[in-house]
Amino acid sequence: MEDFIKNEILAKFSFDVDAEIGLDKLDDAAVINGIVLTTDSYTVSPIFFAGGNIGSLAVSGTINDIYAIGGKAEAMSSSFIIEEGFEMEDFRKIVRSMFQEAKKGGAAIITGDTKVVERGSVDKIFINTAGIGRTHPQLDENFEGIEGRKKWLLDSNIRDGDKIIVTGSIGDHGAAIMAARYEIESEIESDAKPLNKIMDAALDIGGIVAVKDPTRGGVANLLNEWREKSKIGFLIDEKELPIKEGVKSLCELLGMDALELANEGMYVMAVVPSKAEEVLDAIKKLPEGRDAAIVGEASKDYEYAVLKTEVGGKRIIEAPIGSPVPRIC
Amino acid sequence: MEDFIKNEILAKFSFDVDAEIGLDKLDDAAVINGIVLTTDSYTVSPIFFAGGNIGSLAVSGTINDIYAIGGKAEAMSSSFIIEEGFEMEDFRKIVRSMFQEAKKGGAAIITGDTKVVERGSVDKIFINTAGIGRTHPQLDENFEGIEGRKKWLLDSNIRDGDKIIVTGSIGDHGAAIMAARYEIESEIESDAKPLNKIMDAALDIGGIVAVKDPTRGGVANLLNEWREKSKIGFLIDEKELPIKEGVKSLCELLGMDALELANEGMYVMAVVPSKAEEVLDAIKKLPEGRDAAIVGEASKDYEYAVLKTEVGGKRIIEAPIGSPVPRIC
Repeated sequence: MEDFIKNEILAKFSFDVDAEIGLDKLDDAAVINGIVLTTDSYTVSPIFFAGGNIGSLAVSGTINDIYAIGGKAEAMSSSFIIEEGFEMEDFRKIVRSMFQEAKKGGAAIITGDTKVVERGSVDKIFINTAGIGRTHPQLDENFEGIEGRKKWLLDSNIRDGDKIIVTGSIGDHGAAIMAARYEIESEIESDAKPLNKIMDAALDIGGIVAVKDPTRGGVANLLNEWREKSKIGFLIDEKELPIKEGVKSLCELLGMDALELANEGMYVMAVVPSKAEEVLDAIKKLPEGRDAAIVGEASKDYEYAVLKTEVGGKRIIEAPIGSPVPRIC
Repeated sequence: MEDFIKNEILAKFSFDVDAEIGLDKLDDAAVINGIVLTTDSYTVSPIFFAGGNIGSLAVSGTINDIYAIGGKAEAMSSSFIIEEGFEMEDFRKIVRSMFQEAKKGGAAIITGDTKVVERGSVDKIFINTAGIGRTHPQLDENFEGIEGRKKWLLDSNIRDGDKIIVTGSIGDHGAAIMAARYEIESEIESDAKPLNKIMDAALDIGGIVAVKDPTRGGVANLLNEWREKSKIGFLIDEKELPIKEGVKSLCELLGMDALELANEGMYVMAVVPSKAEEVLDAIKKLPEGRDAAIVGEASKDYEYAVLKTEVGGKRIIEAPIGSPVPRIC
């Protein structure tokens, strides 16, 4: 599908557009005439899981995509496709949590659409959220003194020596979905939440060059996207990775790699070395950033994303082929 | 569902938002800080039909919603939910027509999302489009000299005596879908298309107070929405209604009312009487407006939308209960 999009859609169908960041960038959001626009459709199964539901996920995801490119979320739309006979009480719960998360994220839900389709045409409920925002007020200051990087926190912005920060523990959302899917007892909750305060704090310090949330394919997929677009390798230190015990044991049980599991309330950030410690300190002061850590750096010595393992070896972090868990978001 | 949205969502969950036009208006689009935002999810079945497909429909619908409130479309997102095994060639056709319609409508597709779900979780393909725009450059001039109406082409803006213009023939999209659904031979094609040129021409004349596209529930539903929000009745003259012979015969065959069938490339406009003829002339000069007609007026003499029939009687145009054809868009 990704190849199809790149080779067919982008090569053949896009026409002259004055977007600052357009479809061809395949980044977290687009920017046109000072407006940031992003969209995602959510098909997560099950729709309720520890730590959230399809609605809270949709709102957080859209807010986080706007901040991840260097925007400040302002408003969003929500569009529901609902299977006939869906429980109204469940819909009410979902909608309630959407408004709660939107409020936390400082973005209002201002328009929407609802389609009800016959049984069997959709699995319970799918939600699309699209969000708009403006340039984050601190984005320009953030880039002051950084040479050779484009404004906006782009996947292609990373250079040799940049420090890699994760703002929370790895794989919590994917693990929570797996536990729900396979009915495994677990204390792990999805980390789905708006990350606006994390970004406000980070941009306040400055020196942030790229930000992305590791959703489908997790941190492993994210690093490989960065690698391709920035043409730089990474050295990640396994012993620095914040991974909860519950996630580790779930991964052992199911033979999965936490680096391939999705997060929905955590960013990976590339930060210029001179600012990295200060950014980390600012993030760790926030409750949603208390597990943050510097986990490695971009390095021209490596062609790939490389993991320095706890036992002292090295292995390539490959992009997962397909999603290890479908319908994760 | 509509009651649920009004009573549960709007009453309980919306919080203080500085939107000029927010969720509570239930209008075609929202406006916040000068940005117009709209969204729709498309679940039409069949996905290919005479005159278009789910993709051209999605793009036209979103562009038309932005213009319908008084905006000028600037860009849009598109988000696909695709059933595993869906034909790539069909997807290619859909995407190609989306870019074509977007170009016609002057709005670029700048960001997107694709989710592939397992067989049986979605019926082939659903598409969400969300669009952004700015205030139409002629919107202020359009309102010059009109007293007591709010800027933006709102459902609540209609007053006694306003003329009602339809910009094209009635029910074409719904009829085309019905013909495809029931495999009836018909020459009727969906009217799905962007209406930006119609709106540019109409606002250039001025005096437009409300605009809406008669999608689900058709003109019948539209007039009843206007009636509720503007608190005014309508007198519509049946003999002035542009309805194609093919649509009429299909309606007879299936026992349906053309006024309840959807359009996806036609507006209903309320225009101040002094400007109505001039607006009509300007619209009729465009190929997409050649069937336009003044079909009646808003009238305080009526509590309902009333149809003066060709045989000389009068009947109330009621809002259809549910959709006569589900998954029309």
